[in-house]
Amino acid sequence: MKKNIAVILGDGIGPEVTQQSIKVLDAVAKKFNHEFHYRYCLMGADAIDKTGSPLPDETVTICLDSDAILFGAIGHPKYDNDPTAKVRPEQGLLKLRKSLQLFANIRPITTYASLHHLSPLKAKNLEGVDFVIYRELTGGIYFGKKELSDDKLQASDDCVYSASEIERIAHLAFQHAQKRRKKLTLVDKANVLETSRLWRRIVQEVAVQYSDVAVDYMFVDNASMQIIINPKQFDVILTENMFGDIISDEASVLSGSLGLAPSASVGSAVALFEPIHGSYPQAAGKDIANPVGSILSAAMMLDHFGLTEEAQLVRDAVNWTLQHGFVTKDIDAINSYSTTTIGDLVRDYTENKI
Amino acid sequence: MKKNIAVILGDGIGPEVTQQSIKVLDAVAKKFNHEFHYRYCLMGADAIDKTGSPLPDETVTICLDSDAILFGAIGHPKYDNDPTAKVRPEQGLLKLRKSLQLFANIRPITTYASLHHLSPLKAKNLEGVDFVIYRELTGGIYFGKKELSDDKLQASDDCVYSASEIERIAHLAFQHAQKRRKKLTLVDKANVLETSRLWRRIVQEVAVQYSDVAVDYMFVDNASMQIIINPKQFDVILTENMFGDIISDEASVLSGSLGLAPSASVGSAVALFEPIHGSYPQAAGKDIANPVGSILSAAMMLDHFGLTEEAQLVRDAVNWTLQHGFVTKDIDAINSYSTTTIGDLVRDYTENKI
Ligand SMILES: [Mg+2]
Ligand SMILES: [Mg+2]
Repeated sequence: MKKNIAVILGDGIGPEVTQQSIKVLDAVAKKFNHEFHYRYCLMGADAIDKTGSPLPDETVTICLDSDAILFGAIGHPKYDNDPTAKVRPEQGLLKLRKSLQLFANIRPITTYASLHHLSPLKAKNLEGVDFVIYRELTGGIYFGKKELSDDKLQASDDCVYSASEIERIAHLAFQHAQKRRKKLTLVDKANVLETSRLWRRIVQEVAVQYSDVAVDYMFVDNASMQIIINPKQFDVILTENMFGDIISDEASVLSGSLGLAPSASVGSAVALFEPIHGSYPQAAGKDIANPVGSILSAAMMLDHFGLTEEAQLVRDAVNWTLQHGFVTKDIDAINSYSTTTIGDLVRDYTENKI
Repeated sequence: MKKNIAVILGDGIGPEVTQQSIKVLDAVAKKFNHEFHYRYCLMGADAIDKTGSPLPDETVTICLDSDAILFGAIGHPKYDNDPTAKVRPEQGLLKLRKSLQLFANIRPITTYASLHHLSPLKAKNLEGVDFVIYRELTGGIYFGKKELSDDKLQASDDCVYSASEIERIAHLAFQHAQKRRKKLTLVDKANVLETSRLWRRIVQEVAVQYSDVAVDYMFVDNASMQIIINPKQFDVILTENMFGDIISDEASVLSGSLGLAPSASVGSAVALFEPIHGSYPQAAGKDIANPVGSILSAAMMLDHFGLTEEAQLVRDAVNWTLQHGFVTKDIDAINSYSTTTIGDLVRDYTENKI
């Protein structure tokens, strides 16, 4: 298989973690006889420094012309702390998401037996936890009409959803559930919200096409409890934008480290893969950042290409490093390894050298 | 002090848990020389069975004419499972909240060292956790205009807040913070929502009158993480209706049992005190329900009357029972005590008989 991958190293620790993913992808290509061509492009603070724009047109062109985008991280404190800054790094990512119409954010939640001690939850609540959250990314209250009255004493935000916005992400979530444990939970607030009742009706209609998937419905306030008290009940969670924002961040703490978590954002065209962690500028260039979030994002990209065996091998490689205590210092402050070493080990395992 | 208390025993386990609170309140009255007069009234399934209405007019009259309302629980499966039912028990509570204009829901989150083993969180994350959530209860997206397009393919929910709605609950929350550790955290999504920006501005304005209280601001997605990874950072949380619904339910699991948690709903007139648990009809009449949620709600009522010493004594009594293993079977299935026994012990401790 031949694939063009747009690579946006981005800011802070973005470049060093993404470089580990590239090593691993190269090992996959070699072993399985694929060709991955990387085309590097700019976004974020890095892009502002070099071009004046957080998202140069060339980046959008390259991304739209690629099979997938591998992205590191965005943001630099010199822009956060400068209220006079006219452009901000984060604008680049928002604009890219819009250009690519990325309507679904996908976050797998996995826990690792060897890291249970890092989680705020008790080990018994973590065993067997393995679910994926599909969050709608372009609709709902974050993008609805906002108003502030002339006297500035009343404000409003409108939450709007259309059937087609719900359908397209519902299909993705059901298809994923079919490849997993065949359970889909719609998280909503249908006892109160009209938009939630539309979500529920459309999901019920879409469900007819996926009769092998069991569907259940859970109110968001209950979901926020269930994610803590019984997270292993979930397989695929589907939800609207704001509920997804809240519960995916909540669920991300289960594994014990944000540095391990990957994500994908999928649209009608090309998809984007990125770790959920930020640019962590204090660690940039020190070869101490955790590359696992980026490497597992690359594994999601392989899955997206239909290369499931390859993706699983990369995940096995990551599991092997975690089980054997090969971790960066965010995981173990005393016995820690460098970013590069973890990347090398995952690559070597992928190449069957371990 | 002389107080008239409207008592709504309600449905399911409501009567038996509320009766324990009355015993404890009587002990407080005796010890501190107060007079509490109880006026019993009907609401919920019990009221439907006896009067045909989930909230008889007489109940509203008695409540409005009382100094506080002590309420048990509402709901019965015979109405839930009957789609033809024209009246539902829960309508009674919604209508009462509206009649009393209860605009603030207050939920203390406490953890107990002797119950750490019941919590989904590790003990080290639970130590020193003691915060209160102020949730706005009458505005926001739950009560905004709801629309479904004629073709039923688009739905919307409007989220609206006015400055005065924010001000009145902000004052309550700041006043409570002054009596506690003097920290208030506003949970919002001010980076995205216009209503959140209004909340932030009004809270900043109100804060000027409470210069001894430190204020910070947290986005709701971050708050949903922080409640799990570092809950002891919080003192008073103030938030809008839907965010409060989600995070107060999330936080309620920290203690390890919903049976322990009290709540208050405060308005411009009379306030209502109730445990957060439901009517649990399967346990009704068996003398096995946990009365602690109701007893601690009665303690909140004492605080509301300004009887802080009395309230603290009741809490001390509850702590004593929990520490000594006097618990109902939801807490310890093997060594458990009856609802009545726990009520007796809390009463006896309150009367200095223990
Ligand atoms: Mg978020
Ligand atoms: Mg709730």
